[in-house]
Amino acid sequence: MNIEYPRRWPHWSRLRISDTVGDAFNHIDQSSGNDTESLDYEVIENIAYREDQASRGKFHYISYVTLKWLFVLLIGVATGFSAFFINIAVENFSGWKFSATFTVMKYSYIAGFLVYCLFNLVLVFASVNIVTKFAPAAAGSGIPEIKGYLNGIDMPGILLFRTLVGKIFGSIGSVGGGLALGKEGPLVHTGACIASLVGQGGSVRHFIKWKWLEVFKNDRDRRDLVTCGCAAGVSAAFRAPVGGVLFALEEVTSWWRSQLLWRVFFTSAVVAVVVRSAMGWCTHGHCGHFGSGGFIIWDVSGGQDDYSFYELLPMAMVGVIGGLLGALFNQLTLYLSSWRKHILHKRGERVKIMEACLVSLLTSVLSFGLPLLTKCTTCPEGDKYSDIVCPRPEGSYGNYVNFHCSNPNEYNDLATIFFNTQDDAIRNLFSTKTIHEYSASSLLTFLAMFFSLAVITFGTAVPAGQFVPGIMIGSTYGRLVGMLVVNVYKNSNVDEGTYALLGAASFLGGSMRMTVSLCVIMVEITNNLNLLPLIMLVLLISKAVGDAFNAGLYEEQARMKGIPLLESKPKHFMRRTQVKETCQSQKVVCFDRVSKVGHIISVLQNNNHHGFPVTDKLQSGETVVIGLILRSYLLVLLQSKKDFQASNPHRDIREQLSRHSMTDFAKQASSKGLSLQDIYLTPEEMALYIDLEPFVNPSPYIVPEDMSLTKVYNLFRQLGLRHVLVVPRPSQVVGVITRKDLISEPSEDTNAHEPSSIGDR
Amino acid sequence: MNIEYPRRWPHWSRLRISDTVGDAFNHIDQSSGNDTESLDYEVIENIAYREDQASRGKFHYISYVTLKWLFVLLIGVATGFSAFFINIAVENFSGWKFSATFTVMKYSYIAGFLVYCLFNLVLVFASVNIVTKFAPAAAGSGIPEIKGYLNGIDMPGILLFRTLVGKIFGSIGSVGGGLALGKEGPLVHTGACIASLVGQGGSVRHFIKWKWLEVFKNDRDRRDLVTCGCAAGVSAAFRAPVGGVLFALEEVTSWWRSQLLWRVFFTSAVVAVVVRSAMGWCTHGHCGHFGSGGFIIWDVSGGQDDYSFYELLPMAMVGVIGGLLGALFNQLTLYLSSWRKHILHKRGERVKIMEACLVSLLTSVLSFGLPLLTKCTTCPEGDKYSDIVCPRPEGSYGNYVNFHCSNPNEYNDLATIFFNTQDDAIRNLFSTKTIHEYSASSLLTFLAMFFSLAVITFGTAVPAGQFVPGIMIGSTYGRLVGMLVVNVYKNSNVDEGTYALLGAASFLGGSMRMTVSLCVIMVEITNNLNLLPLIMLVLLISKAVGDAFNAGLYEEQARMKGIPLLESKPKHFMRRTQVKETCQSQKVVCFDRVSKVGHIISVLQNNNHHGFPVTDKLQSGETVVIGLILRSYLLVLLQSKKDFQASNPHRDIREQLSRHSMTDFAKQASSKGLSLQDIYLTPEEMALYIDLEPFVNPSPYIVPEDMSLTKVYNLFRQLGLRHVLVVPRPSQVVGVITRKDLISEPSEDTNAHEPSSIGDR
Repeated sequence: MNIEYPRRWPHWSRLRISDTVGDAFNHIDQSSGNDTESLDYEVIENIAYREDQASRGKFHYISYVTLKWLFVLLIGVATGFSAFFINIAVENFSGWKFSATFTVMKYSYIAGFLVYCLFNLVLVFASVNIVTKFAPAAAGSGIPEIKGYLNGIDMPGILLFRTLVGKIFGSIGSVGGGLALGKEGPLVHTGACIASLVGQGGSVRHFIKWKWLEVFKNDRDRRDLVTCGCAAGVSAAFRAPVGGVLFALEEVTSWWRSQLLWRVFFTSAVVAVVVRSAMGWCTHGHCGHFGSGGFIIWDVSGGQDDYSFYELLPMAMVGVIGGLLGALFNQLTLYLSSWRKHILHKRGERVKIMEACLVSLLTSVLSFGLPLLTKCTTCPEGDKYSDIVCPRPEGSYGNYVNFHCSNPNEYNDLATIFFNTQDDAIRNLFSTKTIHEYSASSLLTFLAMFFSLAVITFGTAVPAGQFVPGIMIGSTYGRLVGMLVVNVYKNSNVDEGTYALLGAASFLGGSMRMTVSLCVIMVEITNNLNLLPLIMLVLLISKAVGDAFNAGLYEEQARMKGIPLLESKPKHFMRRTQVKETCQSQKVVCFDRVSKVGHIISVLQNNNHHGFPVTDKLQSGETVVIGLILRSYLLVLLQSKKDFQASNPHRDIREQLSRHSMTDFAKQASSKGLSLQDIYLTPEEMALYIDLEPFVNPSPYIVPEDMSLTKVYNLFRQLGLRHVLVVPRPSQVVGVITRKDLISEPSEDTNAHEPSSIGDR
Repeated sequence: MNIEYPRRWPHWSRLRISDTVGDAFNHIDQSSGNDTESLDYEVIENIAYREDQASRGKFHYISYVTLKWLFVLLIGVATGFSAFFINIAVENFSGWKFSATFTVMKYSYIAGFLVYCLFNLVLVFASVNIVTKFAPAAAGSGIPEIKGYLNGIDMPGILLFRTLVGKIFGSIGSVGGGLALGKEGPLVHTGACIASLVGQGGSVRHFIKWKWLEVFKNDRDRRDLVTCGCAAGVSAAFRAPVGGVLFALEEVTSWWRSQLLWRVFFTSAVVAVVVRSAMGWCTHGHCGHFGSGGFIIWDVSGGQDDYSFYELLPMAMVGVIGGLLGALFNQLTLYLSSWRKHILHKRGERVKIMEACLVSLLTSVLSFGLPLLTKCTTCPEGDKYSDIVCPRPEGSYGNYVNFHCSNPNEYNDLATIFFNTQDDAIRNLFSTKTIHEYSASSLLTFLAMFFSLAVITFGTAVPAGQFVPGIMIGSTYGRLVGMLVVNVYKNSNVDEGTYALLGAASFLGGSMRMTVSLCVIMVEITNNLNLLPLIMLVLLISKAVGDAFNAGLYEEQARMKGIPLLESKPKHFMRRTQVKETCQSQKVVCFDRVSKVGHIISVLQNNNHHGFPVTDKLQSGETVVIGLILRSYLLVLLQSKKDFQASNPHRDIREQLSRHSMTDFAKQASSKGLSLQDIYLTPEEMALYIDLEPFVNPSPYIVPEDMSLTKVYNLFRQLGLRHVLVVPRPSQVVGVITRKDLISEPSEDTNAHEPSSIGDR
């Protein structure tokens, strides 16, 4: 059996893109009732694109590469400045808030409370209004959505310009408003939005668009840029360039290309440079309340630098607590967000706004009221090694906050962590050489209250990250364990701040289940490489404990939102399942090479598959699969009507393709793509034909029907595929490709083969 | 067309392993004339193995996972201690050498020189003897070989116990003997050897073997462990745990599994803990001349922490020089090693030994003689910020070596870098706040001499790494540029040590073409995160410049050694090539399901393919490909003779498999595997049959014949494949697998499918 099929010239096939099927997601979306749209988003091996590149000249290639580097530079700079802007705004709002409150409190506690409360409320109100009325996709952290995007699932609106604006201003409001959430997750989303906008040359609707930048308006390049943006976001949020790269690598993508690694790393480093330069400018006092801290967010490099073996037990305990609390946090937030999604948020925007305002009020009451109920503590004896002043001078930041203390030599330990910005609170919790600063009861109160606040706040319609609240919670119980260790072992080498840091790592590990990237981020934000092995130990334990209960925070949330992410490990049953069992109940919908327009319309109407195999009949009468066509391509073809033809079946591929430009088929990030409702056809047009051949992906990945599902799963993950065709066992092998075939040059190829061509049949 | 083929029970198929063909390499090996053996080494998706795991109980699974973690712990500890041992030995030998030389020099320069020379000669002689007579695979750095191993190419003997021993003691000799080479590359190889030995439960020949550890005696687990070992080696060599992980990720493997990431990271951290603890023990003076330095090898954290924009130009210059010199280094070493391989080293071991001794003598003469010809310099004025004493006190280490200086207030700048251990020399070159320590002429002399020595030394039959020589060369010209900058800009903020560091990075980048991992390693060995963006800039430039001339050092060496590595980017022509063009000239050698023993023997004799498709005839008379069998499996079957049968074609799979244990088919790391010469068959046996069905890999990866070669290339790299079957375009699609199919549970599966099953034909 020798199938004679005309050889193709690949440079014609520049539109035959993708191994993508969006098929997967409509059911999930519809059943879960949200408005996720599963758009055909190329995530993969766009060989057609490469061929297109290959057919162009050297000059074009160089300008393409240069432009790509320029773009990642731009992404880095823009993300760095966004992060800087958010930081400045948040710190200044908080600064004004606290200084106003402290000033008014001198006269009246109630007036002080009102000022504090009002400040928070206004900021949160602004934030929730921006999000609900202007940019609904900006709510939450955005990390599950970005993870989805980079694995081929496009949630509507997540990468729009308005989402970017909403995210930036919304998180200024929500973080400045003192809610129990962080700005780190939103920054990752911000980076991704910037990357996507840069990649498509601006936003159409906002008139900042450059036509010549459309080189990158294809899905593969955009995906690469978004990966860079994602790393840039982490790098900006934590000032952790290496952590950013590893985050993008470990957490976000399932596939990996080594060429991309270097570019991602470059973006991260650019962000670091930008943030550092901007902060350097701030040290001269240009930035109001911002700029006191260094590049390292919570520097503990002066802390504990050695550890004894007997400390491993309490550290393991920290890990176990982290695993338990993290899993509890995931479970509670899952219940709550599912309740919100199905009941509360269905009642309209007003409910969302009221909810956020209520949470803000509750937060204000707790953070103002609880410290009032706490007794003040006398400052410790002056320590010659420490330059920390107790109580801290008015108008400054740091430990030992004097809040409602009658004696000027006293401080309020609960106010030190509760009545403060979160960054400062964490700095205070991590602070070394401040043994016995906090009483156990204060820490316990704070832990219980803040944990509850974080759970309640999660899922309100404001931009919200979970890193900082996680660090707050974790460092509180970590510090508690540290106090215990100090009391039990009476070793002056033990530092409570170290345990706080380990606690923070353990809670994040127990909740988000990240490993390597989290480790590196923790090291980079605290600048203490010595603690790396301890952080690893704690993470190992907390992740293992957490995994015994439920999946990670992002996975749980993605599942609830109907984003189908492939976990890193295939399920157990897949080992025993052959792929043909999985598609037993499927009836495959195929198109003939030349199909009637009316038939295509009816097929598209009657099902929601996103990819269709295309078959052709050879002269011998045999049927052969010539490729796969995407629903979105069919829609474009139907709308443009350029390719309709009366009857003559085969037309010149080159001619057909010349009528389309490459960007016709690429989805706009800012639109929802075509739908069948947008297409209007007359009955005469319905009777015409289309030759689909130029528009198919001629070589989709295929697997034999008896391959195990595990193997297919890995194929999907490692190559980032969105569909695979299952075919019967082949009846013939045309050749065996080995590594040698891929190494030798084409000229050597034929010679190299000769000696091995020994037939036996 | 509906092929009826009996469904298989996967738990029977536990021997049907692998997508591996060793086919690729024999030609290359034979033509290049070395004794590389291309063994069937499973690098991949060993689903049969997973199925085997799946069929066992929960307890077994837990013990398996526990054991795997224990093993990586063991690898970390062992690699850490090996590194520590090598360090101690090298430092002590060097210490004794220098103190003896300095002592004797007080009386006579000639006697001093003789002592110095003899010391070096004895150490190098020991090293080259160990390597040539005992462990030939221990020569060189071993990194190209390990890279090959992890990509599926097993060079003979690289992971043996004797190689490990040879590597450790050989590198003590070669590094202690003062040759222009480093111990870092060999440490990576050491880590890999340890991992492989641990993985197979010890070495058979050396009676340290535990039967119960054979759980991991399969190729997939061994590959994972070797990856860990590789990272452990880097981590131990540079005390850079994160750098080690990234090295394994970026440089060594082409595939990547996220589960492995965490384990690799754990190993790296264990190494860091072990090395740190051991070094902590040394600070109490237990280790002789070793133990003065801290955990960070060349700490420059006290150096330049800011940079001006005008410095970017000289820094870019450093990058360009690095690219040029690195490419030159690669080219010269390539010529030289090719000459050595084809001419010099063919003359036998004695030539190799003499060569190494000559190189040692030359090195001794240059490093002793050149400083003698240099004039001494007067010590700089005492600097209150610096605690560096000039000249350094006798018997200590550091800057400002007094060598052949008449005045006690003088030092010899060339001796400071040349007549010193390399670690100290680098520390001196990186040293900050020592402006104008070196004269330009001394640096230039050293650069020229050391570059030549490094080129000549590369390829001698001793364990040799290129990291440290690269750093030496790079930091020399870096410091030269730094001196220029100091003189031109007259800015007190500029530090020559920073430029030395950038120079080191640039030369390594220009020679090895590593990017991310090199960046992180440089940061970790110098502990200055601030310089990260500058290091990146320099690496970007030097890699780009170097790439314009030739491939990276390891790639060039691998190609010369006949190791077929797939580069990270497919070649340009592949975009236009269909896979069927590549296998046009192949005649595929197939076996029938039940084949005659004699036929199999003759096929194996007549060609050197390493994998053969197996076909079967259905009752309908149609032929169908039932899988792929490996040459090595056939050899095992032929040798064991258990499965020979008279005529009855099909036998019970379960029964056949029960006669073999899983480890029968796994290759011993310590042997060369079976060859056809080991098999003796009587004419009666030759007339018998074998049913091959139980031993095939039933679902090898297949690609349609018109897929582009680029796409196949990526498939190979990303999945780490060793062969792929090329089949005709399918005539039918059984189903389309999408992400949804991989997410839903088997029970939900059928339901979820119903609504989408709308057929059109």
